[in-house]
Amino acid sequence: MVILLGASGYIGRAFSLELERRGLDYLPLSRNEINYLKFDDLLKCIITNKAKLVVNAAGFTGRPNVDACEKERAETLRGNTLLAQTVAHACVAANVPWGHVSSGCIFSGAKITQNNKTRIEVDLTKPEVKALISRDRNLLGGFNEEDEPNFTFRSLPCSFYSGTKALAEEVITDFPRGYVWRLRIPFDEFNNPRNYLSKLQSYQKVYSNVNSLSHRTDFVCACLDLWGSRSPYGIYNVTNPGFVTTEEVVEMIQETISPKREFEFWKNDEDFYKYGGKAPRSNCVLDVSKLVNAGVFIRPVQEALYASIQNWKP
Amino acid sequence: MVILLGASGYIGRAFSLELERRGLDYLPLSRNEINYLKFDDLLKCIITNKAKLVVNAAGFTGRPNVDACEKERAETLRGNTLLAQTVAHACVAANVPWGHVSSGCIFSGAKITQNNKTRIEVDLTKPEVKALISRDRNLLGGFNEEDEPNFTFRSLPCSFYSGTKALAEEVITDFPRGYVWRLRIPFDEFNNPRNYLSKLQSYQKVYSNVNSLSHRTDFVCACLDLWGSRSPYGIYNVTNPGFVTTEEVVEMIQETISPKREFEFWKNDEDFYKYGGKAPRSNCVLDVSKLVNAGVFIRPVQEALYASIQNWKP
Repeated sequence: MVILLGASGYIGRAFSLELERRGLDYLPLSRNEINYLKFDDLLKCIITNKAKLVVNAAGFTGRPNVDACEKERAETLRGNTLLAQTVAHACVAANVPWGHVSSGCIFSGAKITQNNKTRIEVDLTKPEVKALISRDRNLLGGFNEEDEPNFTFRSLPCSFYSGTKALAEEVITDFPRGYVWRLRIPFDEFNNPRNYLSKLQSYQKVYSNVNSLSHRTDFVCACLDLWGSRSPYGIYNVTNPGFVTTEEVVEMIQETISPKREFEFWKNDEDFYKYGGKAPRSNCVLDVSKLVNAGVFIRPVQEALYASIQNWKP
Repeated sequence: MVILLGASGYIGRAFSLELERRGLDYLPLSRNEINYLKFDDLLKCIITNKAKLVVNAAGFTGRPNVDACEKERAETLRGNTLLAQTVAHACVAANVPWGHVSSGCIFSGAKITQNNKTRIEVDLTKPEVKALISRDRNLLGGFNEEDEPNFTFRSLPCSFYSGTKALAEEVITDFPRGYVWRLRIPFDEFNNPRNYLSKLQSYQKVYSNVNSLSHRTDFVCACLDLWGSRSPYGIYNVTNPGFVTTEEVVEMIQETISPKREFEFWKNDEDFYKYGGKAPRSNCVLDVSKLVNAGVFIRPVQEALYASIQNWKP
């Protein structure tokens, strides 16, 4: 039996569907059914149901966006950090493997390799980076699982949301038999306030940046594949390989979904933070070599984006 | 065996001395001996040592003062909230009672009773409150254990420190067999950077306010008495009964310790936050009826202060 926490959330629903499709026995839980914030209740549930995996797809992302987490600190910490620790404790006590849906937003920027060896961090807001991408996109690389997260409470400023996600990773990676799956900006063909493609279409003005993204179903498939193939426990960046600029995605949307729509961009970061976002935003590129080297198949981001936009369900 | 976490800290050392004095078997732990942030290590330690009580006197208060917690967020959360949850989980798993050193600084202000029945909250920075105190101190009452903490992440602004202490209470009071002991501004006769009397003497300027205080030894005695007398588990305000104004304490210091010293006060709150403190400070009066009604003896704050100042050890 797979126990799924946060089953009614955006990522939890995708896990439900995929577990169903794979014919795996699973128990979808949301906080209405059991208060899984409570260690003893969760532990009892894990033991009673003879869980062979606990997936924590629950979390607190803030509504309508991450800015809400700056104020709703107790909920953000409970949902993202304290729950993650509770799940790890219960799984350690029951000796059951677990998987935690983490986030790539604990990073900011990307990496480039200089002189064929030194990897240095680059700031994605610099015009040089976009110039570099248009010259040769392969020059821009991402953070891997060995890199220290750089958008966290230990490297302020960060958003409160990112701080709580990074702290969760820090705390739970102490424990054995666990996967930490880093999701990054989910999207697919179904219109939804959490879907990146929906968000881009709903914004008054668009924030120009460079990011790795995770197709929602590709993400949950990759997570379950890691577990199913008994890949080593640990942290995995689970995004579709590659990255996109916001301009590229907007262009794809204009070509297929909204040919008449004009998209307006914030002039620059200053403009965005003055009128748009409050909390600092993470924009980053992740390296998925570890996932791919584990033998997990996942489509390149351009391909997944193209398919989602072609099959767009408004 | 009593297991004592944070044994080398300011409050932990007082617990050690008192456990010693009472001839109770105890295991003083600091993070050099065992990483008690880790659930499985702590659980093993509790079981192996057949603990009959786990005291969590560990925490992260910030140095030189609480302002440091605004920046050291990961450490503050780990030390105050995540550790508190870990201890509660381990004690629940081992079915062992526990006591957590919490803080009264999750409150701001005091209470007055109007028309003999309605208790209303008052702001201690208002001049009316000091006028009230000089008219009849008995008119000013404190927050009791039924009152919702009002200086927390759920009632911003608060200091980051207070937020993490309040969140810990919220999370751990879900569990049975636990004491939550609220300390408030510790002091005694031994000069120490954590001692309120030392702090007052070291400040360039003093912040005028009204507070309940906890004599350090009186505090640990009361905590252990609650456990020893099998008082009901739950939250207890553990301060010396009553409250003091900063002016009263300064006057006592001038009379005995530093007769020649002139103390300068911040003009008002605005002045203090502009040049003195960064994070908002909690100043509050706590009601200790629950503790006293449990049959625990604790000296009035004026008496404990007088004794500490008379026996001052520079």
